[in-house]
Amino acid sequence: MKKGNNKKLRIIPLGGLEKIGMNITAFEYEDSIIVVDCGLAFPEDDMLGIDLVIPDITYLKDNIQKVKGFVITHGHEDHIGALSYVLREMNLPIYATKLTMGIIEKKLTEHNLLRSTRRKVVKFGQSINLGQFRIEFIKTNHSIQDASALAIYSPAGTVIHTGDFKVDYTPVFGDAIDLQRFAEIGKKGVLALMSDSTNAERPGFTQSERTVGHTFDHLFAEHKNSRIIIATFASNVDRVQQIINSAYKYDRKVVVEGRSMINIISTAQELGYLNVPEKTLVEIDQLKNYPPEKTVLITTGSQGESMAALSRMAADIHRKVTIMPNDTVIFSSSPIPGNEKSVSRVINELSEKGAHVIFQDAHVSGHACQEELKLIYSLVKPKYAIPIHGEYRHRKANALLANSLGIPKDNIFMLHSGDVLEISNEEASVVDKVHTGEVLVDGLGVGDVGNIVLRDRQHLAEDGILIVVMTLEKGTNQLLSGPDIVSRGFVYVRESEEFLDEAKQLLEDAIERCLSRQKNADWSKIKLIVRDTMNEFIWRRTKRRPMILPIIMDV
Amino acid sequence: MKKGNNKKLRIIPLGGLEKIGMNITAFEYEDSIIVVDCGLAFPEDDMLGIDLVIPDITYLKDNIQKVKGFVITHGHEDHIGALSYVLREMNLPIYATKLTMGIIEKKLTEHNLLRSTRRKVVKFGQSINLGQFRIEFIKTNHSIQDASALAIYSPAGTVIHTGDFKVDYTPVFGDAIDLQRFAEIGKKGVLALMSDSTNAERPGFTQSERTVGHTFDHLFAEHKNSRIIIATFASNVDRVQQIINSAYKYDRKVVVEGRSMINIISTAQELGYLNVPEKTLVEIDQLKNYPPEKTVLITTGSQGESMAALSRMAADIHRKVTIMPNDTVIFSSSPIPGNEKSVSRVINELSEKGAHVIFQDAHVSGHACQEELKLIYSLVKPKYAIPIHGEYRHRKANALLANSLGIPKDNIFMLHSGDVLEISNEEASVVDKVHTGEVLVDGLGVGDVGNIVLRDRQHLAEDGILIVVMTLEKGTNQLLSGPDIVSRGFVYVRESEEFLDEAKQLLEDAIERCLSRQKNADWSKIKLIVRDTMNEFIWRRTKRRPMILPIIMDV
Repeated sequence: MKKGNNKKLRIIPLGGLEKIGMNITAFEYEDSIIVVDCGLAFPEDDMLGIDLVIPDITYLKDNIQKVKGFVITHGHEDHIGALSYVLREMNLPIYATKLTMGIIEKKLTEHNLLRSTRRKVVKFGQSINLGQFRIEFIKTNHSIQDASALAIYSPAGTVIHTGDFKVDYTPVFGDAIDLQRFAEIGKKGVLALMSDSTNAERPGFTQSERTVGHTFDHLFAEHKNSRIIIATFASNVDRVQQIINSAYKYDRKVVVEGRSMINIISTAQELGYLNVPEKTLVEIDQLKNYPPEKTVLITTGSQGESMAALSRMAADIHRKVTIMPNDTVIFSSSPIPGNEKSVSRVINELSEKGAHVIFQDAHVSGHACQEELKLIYSLVKPKYAIPIHGEYRHRKANALLANSLGIPKDNIFMLHSGDVLEISNEEASVVDKVHTGEVLVDGLGVGDVGNIVLRDRQHLAEDGILIVVMTLEKGTNQLLSGPDIVSRGFVYVRESEEFLDEAKQLLEDAIERCLSRQKNADWSKIKLIVRDTMNEFIWRRTKRRPMILPIIMDV
Repeated sequence: MKKGNNKKLRIIPLGGLEKIGMNITAFEYEDSIIVVDCGLAFPEDDMLGIDLVIPDITYLKDNIQKVKGFVITHGHEDHIGALSYVLREMNLPIYATKLTMGIIEKKLTEHNLLRSTRRKVVKFGQSINLGQFRIEFIKTNHSIQDASALAIYSPAGTVIHTGDFKVDYTPVFGDAIDLQRFAEIGKKGVLALMSDSTNAERPGFTQSERTVGHTFDHLFAEHKNSRIIIATFASNVDRVQQIINSAYKYDRKVVVEGRSMINIISTAQELGYLNVPEKTLVEIDQLKNYPPEKTVLITTGSQGESMAALSRMAADIHRKVTIMPNDTVIFSSSPIPGNEKSVSRVINELSEKGAHVIFQDAHVSGHACQEELKLIYSLVKPKYAIPIHGEYRHRKANALLANSLGIPKDNIFMLHSGDVLEISNEEASVVDKVHTGEVLVDGLGVGDVGNIVLRDRQHLAEDGILIVVMTLEKGTNQLLSGPDIVSRGFVYVRESEEFLDEAKQLLEDAIERCLSRQKNADWSKIKLIVRDTMNEFIWRRTKRRPMILPIIMDV
């Protein structure tokens, strides 16, 4: 790994730059590629029926002989969620810290991929060698434990990738971010810093996770006489720890509810990331054995997800928990953009059942604000800045910060997915573009729903469908049966019989006219006439445009 | 109108209490009914394809001989938007202040209802007599001019209905809220106060509209060298006035863009609610005649609405305005819950084009915060409190405020739409429930899309449709043609031929089996077999549930 030659490092984001989620970045040097993170994204509003979105990894498949493995920064879905899909197509080893690996292993087990996947748990401060790369894991803080920044050493120089991070001087569990190590590597010279932009628009400093613990203590003291239900993110083990601490202090039993919450907590407990005093955790079925004011429920559903435990309680369809007029419900979260209305719906439902809902002050962010970003830039002093993790507006704000700290504009790269950034101590520029994209997952189907299917779903959703079916005699094209009109999602048929009869009459006339003029009119012609006749009639009468689907059978 | 008899006033909200929008409340005393407001609501996310939602007015139609007219508090869509639909079914007079009436008249003209509708413009302080009621209009402040509270005098006592309001001591145009009159009426004794709950969760006092003017001045001074584009709500005439003031001060020409914005501004200008210095407003086509830094665009699209002018500029599909790298774009608005993602998309698109986007500090709310609500309660001192305008959580917060000011819990009514609240100086209680509901408007169709159609649209949107069509011989039930499978929104057919062939083979076997066992199997039986066969096969192979639609023709 001698330095100073003319070879260049190539940084190729394969996702994650156009919106939140789907983080995956390839680092390439000569015959070696490493991949940092492999996340999923949640579908956009117009991706109807889609469950999740994973990155198109054509570039990795085309260069599979070079790819050494996945290096994972932390255990959130937008960084690990696509692994179970991608690993089916290319068997590669995974490198991650202990809790991150624990969470990944749970997923691989579900997808029956655990045995076939090589895995190596890495400790903070430890390095791994992958081809021409050495990668060092550096302790950071985030809203999940064991989050890591990566120092990526290549013959062309060092790149620091922060992953998602914040600076927490007083973390609940484990160490604070290893600022000394960032400084030490920075002192030796860093080519590029790729840093989390999520909160780059926010001034100041993100508060310590520990402050939420104080809030819990106050809330527990204040609501001594009611049951407490707290909704938070399943993966925030420290948050759960602090709820357990307050519960223990105030002599309450704790019930954990919601599948993902139970999964992560059991993993965290097994691996020693959660300290639960004996007899504090009880099963949900034991809840009835304690007075309400001696219990706390920790639950999923802080984003108003319709199937999550809290939403089911609020809608009165939870099998084991009924909201009572004296309950105190705390949202230890803030709504992710797009979820505001769902969260509000749940709050309304809880209030209507008489619960006292608290949705402020019991949460801190897991991402660095402006002062923290400035701190990292100042410790690392990179030659180039590459804002990552966030929408364009967030990355732009990060770029402006970097510029304000003295990094010249020309050394700051606002990349797009697929850009190939070639970078060395002498120069850096985008030299190429590789194929990237989004692969839609719908049920078991991976990639079988594309733009045409989505466009059809949007059309169907908007105005429904009208099917016009008829039977013609083979050869003679004589109309033997139909045209019949069947509709779904357009109008309520029983109340629109007259309207549909009129449409049918118009159709019959149009088809008869066409067939009488031209006995052997081909089917595409007949279908065109059906579409035109119906579109015109329906638009005139309703100002709607349902999908018109002519079907011709022959006998 | 003698007081003190045993007759009771009935307050019947016909909408507006379950969610934001669709405000309409009937007040009934013996043979007289008046209706306060007649608004629309925007469709919920699951109301696919629906344009807007209006109240079901069955109760009014059933009592049409009693109904004296509509009394309107202000000109926002959620208070006037259903008038054009409701007036088609019952011709009633409208009472409103001048600007409010101007906006209503524009709508009535579009719907060809202007000539047939009686209208009376009312001044603040003036009263109208409608049957057993007298209604006085009281000046308030809001994010639209000419907003009014109503004092509704009945033989059973006085009710004050605030409409949407805030307290603005230094309004941009016209007078501050008439606090003295609230006090005067309160002093004489008020039965019930129905007050705006929108901001009841927010502590403090909403800032004066005038503060936004100062912000504009600062922003104009700061961005002297760039074109300024400001997006705000079309109906906020005062906001537009302040932009014009700053533009004039800084010697810029003003262009107004977006249909609804142009409409309202022309109405406001005609009626004297907007003062535009000569030669300040120019047409959009003249924009090219001025240097960019000497122009301001005021535009719609502050909520990221996809068809609005700003969104079209951001997406580069606006016919006349192209975003340039030096542009400053100011969002003089805050996102309405549910619009956060759309707004963010527009901000990202603008940033990508190099525009400098400012989305903070250039907006104030039009609704009263907690201290303002307390002020009105304290001036009016009502016997009963009826929180209105807002989701349940907001109304609950308003109720808690009322209680904290000394109104007993039993005198605070959290009503639902349809509740009949019977109220007098002696007692008040919900005594009945009348029919209410939402009528969905889709294109020209009013009410022809109901739950069944919506459920179909949701199903189609989720997984698409599979149509199975076959022709049977009349009498013999012999399969003459098909079964053919046609799908839309399910899978991309060209890449799924094998899968669909397999499905077809399964179907053929199942139908043959059925028909061979039972020659005269009726069609519902055959359809059931088609559905079951397909559902089972598709779920097993894809974990999806498209709509299965069997169609049988006979010849």
